[in-house]
Amino acid sequence: MDARITVLPGDGVGPEVTAQAVACLSAVGERFGHRFEFQEALIGGAAVDATGDPLPEATLAVCRSSQAVLLGAVGGPAWDGRPRHQRPESGLLRLRQALGLYANLRPVAVHPALEDASPLKPEIVRGTDLMFVRELSGGLYFGEPRSYSDQAAVNTLPYTRAEIERVAKVAFELAAGRRRNLVSVDKANVLETSRLWRQVVEDLAPAYPGVKVQHAYVDSFAMALITRPRDFDVVLTENLFGDILSDEAAVLAGSLGLLPSASLGGSVGVFEPIHGSAPDLAGQDRANPIGTILSAALLLRHGLDLQAEALALESAVDRVLQGGHGTGDLKGAIHPHGTRSLGDRIREAI
Amino acid sequence: MDARITVLPGDGVGPEVTAQAVACLSAVGERFGHRFEFQEALIGGAAVDATGDPLPEATLAVCRSSQAVLLGAVGGPAWDGRPRHQRPESGLLRLRQALGLYANLRPVAVHPALEDASPLKPEIVRGTDLMFVRELSGGLYFGEPRSYSDQAAVNTLPYTRAEIERVAKVAFELAAGRRRNLVSVDKANVLETSRLWRQVVEDLAPAYPGVKVQHAYVDSFAMALITRPRDFDVVLTENLFGDILSDEAAVLAGSLGLLPSASLGGSVGVFEPIHGSAPDLAGQDRANPIGTILSAALLLRHGLDLQAEALALESAVDRVLQGGHGTGDLKGAIHPHGTRSLGDRIREAI
Ligand SMILES: CC(C)[C@H](C(=O)O)[C@@H](O)C(=O)O
Ligand SMILES: CC(C)[C@H](C(=O)O)[C@@H](O)C(=O)O
Repeated sequence: MDARITVLPGDGVGPEVTAQAVACLSAVGERFGHRFEFQEALIGGAAVDATGDPLPEATLAVCRSSQAVLLGAVGGPAWDGRPRHQRPESGLLRLRQALGLYANLRPVAVHPALEDASPLKPEIVRGTDLMFVRELSGGLYFGEPRSYSDQAAVNTLPYTRAEIERVAKVAFELAAGRRRNLVSVDKANVLETSRLWRQVVEDLAPAYPGVKVQHAYVDSFAMALITRPRDFDVVLTENLFGDILSDEAAVLAGSLGLLPSASLGGSVGVFEPIHGSAPDLAGQDRANPIGTILSAALLLRHGLDLQAEALALESAVDRVLQGGHGTGDLKGAIHPHGTRSLGDRIREAI
Repeated sequence: MDARITVLPGDGVGPEVTAQAVACLSAVGERFGHRFEFQEALIGGAAVDATGDPLPEATLAVCRSSQAVLLGAVGGPAWDGRPRHQRPESGLLRLRQALGLYANLRPVAVHPALEDASPLKPEIVRGTDLMFVRELSGGLYFGEPRSYSDQAAVNTLPYTRAEIERVAKVAFELAAGRRRNLVSVDKANVLETSRLWRQVVEDLAPAYPGVKVQHAYVDSFAMALITRPRDFDVVLTENLFGDILSDEAAVLAGSLGLLPSASLGGSVGVFEPIHGSAPDLAGQDRANPIGTILSAALLLRHGLDLQAEALALESAVDRVLQGGHGTGDLKGAIHPHGTRSLGDRIREAI
């Protein structure tokens, strides 16, 4: 197939990690006979510096004209003092909303070679294989009214049945194709929005009779995720709870740098690592490219519907990790490479 | 001294664990020559069953007429179908608000005898000693407008400068008396309320020149709490973030059943374990009484200003744990006792 892929390197380590993922995508394309055309565009602080806008209209147009978007990371202290609409993060949030990306998939699997890289005991993390489905275009992130003054501030947490239903369906469908176990996380003992969340999940459950559904309160789930991660399969959450819990879950895998994400729901998906721009590592060839490379695999699977190609890329990453290669963020018996050198190994393993 | 202490046993294991804490308080009273008078009142599901109201007016009156309140836990599936104002949890939330309890202290320390009770590696948790200060009477828990219908629901997250300032002062003062290290957790890259939160903390900082202040985003803090817990001392959070993060931090200590809390700010404080009512354990003499007994120690310290007495009770708990005694929730080389038997040992050690 021919496919146009937009690459948004962003800030900090973003350009370094996306470069490795692009190289891997090209290698997959060569091996499977596809022609991937890459077009770069600006987002985040890089876009603010160049245009004053963290999501220039031109970037959005390029994204819309492509089949999928690969993103690095945005943000950094350089833009801390800016007003809200000139903050790198607001470019990312506007991109998610403009493209209608309501479902954020964050797989967290513990690689056998990295059972000892986590601060948790190996016997706790071994075999963990989670799929977070985070609602991405609603809730506190976008709720109106919102206001800020020196004396008082307000944010609003709204959810409609339709917003919950569409993301819950994604979670149910993923669960049906996995271990048929869905945990929906909320704070229904306090929040009305969580009561509705729980109700909508309950109402959908009969349509997926093979899927076992549980509900958990976000506080006690934050604990269960660490004490018994293997008990869970698909984890469905609203926007902010998913932000917190999926970062927390990264400790299971051993490093935030390993974890990919896919943001779906509109006509074009965005695929990005869950780590940030890590300004302190930028330009040092030290960032872990695996989170972005695995995001590229999700791009193949969910963005271009290329299943064998996605598996080929994931299996290349697997074999390189199994061989004891990684970056400095991974503890344990791992040979630490630079970003480029690790990317090269993965590309060669495809 | 003479002191009147209200005891609100609540639901599930609440009556069993408060009974042990009351016995310990009596023993402390005897040893130090104080006369503690205990008066029981209804809260939660027990109060709903008896009066239809999870916080009867009589209970509030008894609390207000005493020097401190010891609470067990509220809630359980028996009241799940009830309308909001008849849910056990709403009794607890109304109590917090009625008594003006805006600062919730949750110490999380790892006992040397329990370094192996946690799912984390002993070298990660060893020496951890955190004090969470959670804002308790504002934010999403109480924000208006709030609404629920079959099609849409809304919650509101408001914070004023005054609300943030008063709880932040508590955190700064605690930090000044501890390791002078304060981390304030927010989501200032997305939420206006968090931007205000951060600003107020910054504005207060010059008044506490000895205290080092850091800010962390809630998502990355959820990870740091597990990967490097020893790096933190006092953790300041808004209401819901504190709910999530302090439960998460319980994994460091080895069991939720160990952890106490103090809710302060009004004329009468409430002291309760952070665990819930655990209906599946109720009536089986299996619940860990230590969280409630350590809450009684906080009651002595913060409710009655009895410092030596608080230390005496805490040191009794220490010695019993050091001797290898505990309940079944504690993993590792611990002899598992029943609730009563463990309570007896602690009482005898005072
Ligand atoms: C950068 C920030 C706005 C973003 C979020 O909170 O969604 C990030 O933490 C993420 O999870 O992708
Ligand atoms: C029972 C519930 C309302 C409560 C809360 O969320 O505050 C509990 O989780 C706690 O932390 O004390």
